[in-house]
Amino acid sequence: MGELHVRSLLVTGANRGIGLELVRQFLGMPSPPAWVFAACRDPKGQRVQELQNLASKHPNLVIIPLVTDPASIKAAAARVGEHLGGSGLNLLINNAGIAKASSLDNETLENMTQIYTTNTVGPLLLGQAFLPLLKKAAQGSPGSALNCSKAAIINMSSSAGSIEEVFLWNYGQVVSYRCSKAALNMLTKCQSLGYREHGILCAALHPGWVQTNMGGSGSQKPPVRVDESVRGMLKVLSSLSEKETGTFLDWEGKVVPW
Amino acid sequence: MGELHVRSLLVTGANRGIGLELVRQFLGMPSPPAWVFAACRDPKGQRVQELQNLASKHPNLVIIPLVTDPASIKAAAARVGEHLGGSGLNLLINNAGIAKASSLDNETLENMTQIYTTNTVGPLLLGQAFLPLLKKAAQGSPGSALNCSKAAIINMSSSAGSIEEVFLWNYGQVVSYRCSKAALNMLTKCQSLGYREHGILCAALHPGWVQTNMGGSGSQKPPVRVDESVRGMLKVLSSLSEKETGTFLDWEGKVVPW
Repeated sequence: MGELHVRSLLVTGANRGIGLELVRQFLGMPSPPAWVFAACRDPKGQRVQELQNLASKHPNLVIIPLVTDPASIKAAAARVGEHLGGSGLNLLINNAGIAKASSLDNETLENMTQIYTTNTVGPLLLGQAFLPLLKKAAQGSPGSALNCSKAAIINMSSSAGSIEEVFLWNYGQVVSYRCSKAALNMLTKCQSLGYREHGILCAALHPGWVQTNMGGSGSQKPPVRVDESVRGMLKVLSSLSEKETGTFLDWEGKVVPW
Repeated sequence: MGELHVRSLLVTGANRGIGLELVRQFLGMPSPPAWVFAACRDPKGQRVQELQNLASKHPNLVIIPLVTDPASIKAAAARVGEHLGGSGLNLLINNAGIAKASSLDNETLENMTQIYTTNTVGPLLLGQAFLPLLKKAAQGSPGSALNCSKAAIINMSSSAGSIEEVFLWNYGQVVSYRCSKAALNMLTKCQSLGYREHGILCAALHPGWVQTNMGGSGSQKPPVRVDESVRGMLKVLSSLSEKETGTFLDWEGKVVPW
């Protein structure tokens, strides 16, 4: 297993939960990245206080406004590009995602479309918009082997999106969420095939059933703490190589079936 | 393997390609269904001539207008219910689907959303709208074992939507189509879990790479004739039982990996 030496990364949905903890742990590394871009919907909103506190202490943390809209995504890529000057972006973590309580019986067109747009189309458009910066990072790194320190897209999926497992069905049917994550897994596979020639590794991660707003909205307490999940995922990221591109792994490094 | 004795069925996207051939082969059975409902976007349009010719010869064939819109879907279910009088619908074949040439680089929000709406959300809403008629068919059939003669939802998927296989990637990336079909496979699994208690079997089928407008738009001629594909799929439908609900099979009955 290699070590993670990421010069620059962007995390979406970075103002709370897993996204915020990813930012925190990257900033706390012995040799932290030169640039941590933390994207969230409303950088001036109330739920961004913790991120703002971190930014006041860490000059290498930049908060970027981002919503799932082609213009917003392009603007974010341009802004990140300006900060980076001539260098590329090593790591894009598509962490932002939404879920709404729903069942097979009450799922609607509007809900299906809204959740697909954020959870699946967003990561596609982010991949397109940041491709030039990811390519630049890959070209600027030594060696041809794929890894996360060089250039990678990591999509935050869920084993709720595993068609084989249908994780926690009895806890919540959330059909719109499951369909969006199964589609995100397919997108990850497509990105791995399309971006391999550019030196970019692509993988999907299941963070575990985590004690966040999203995971913990039901009657049962999820078993995994946010800091444990993120520590596990960072270890997994540091271990990814050529043969893991296009795969789906959980926070402990185990393969999740499609 | 059992025989297929379907009293009533509805096929979407029935005016051409696989949908039209499904209608044709059901009508040509030794004991044809009492009702074959053939749904298509515009029953008076130019591309519905063959279906209209069939309807003029087969009084058990009813052409139903249907677009992917909640109101249109509810209206179609009401219309089918009126024809059936007090009896249920045995088989719903969600065959309608669209694809557009696209690549990872030029895929758009609009394209992703449009194709997901038709290919994934449509089958979800159809399942909801026809659930009362499918339940009625299940209740009216003897025995508790699941099968297609009793009550079933069959979703026309594609091994292009297999995350494991990514069938024909070099022929066409069609990311929007692949993501919609992976999501449709997840929907099929969810429907199988949710509708099992109602006695409804749910499965996804891959029709093969078929000589239709959709399959044959590229430079290579697809290997499978429409009539072969449909004959194969009808044989598969006749063989489905309890243990195949929630599975993904091709036109020759082989399991397709998710």
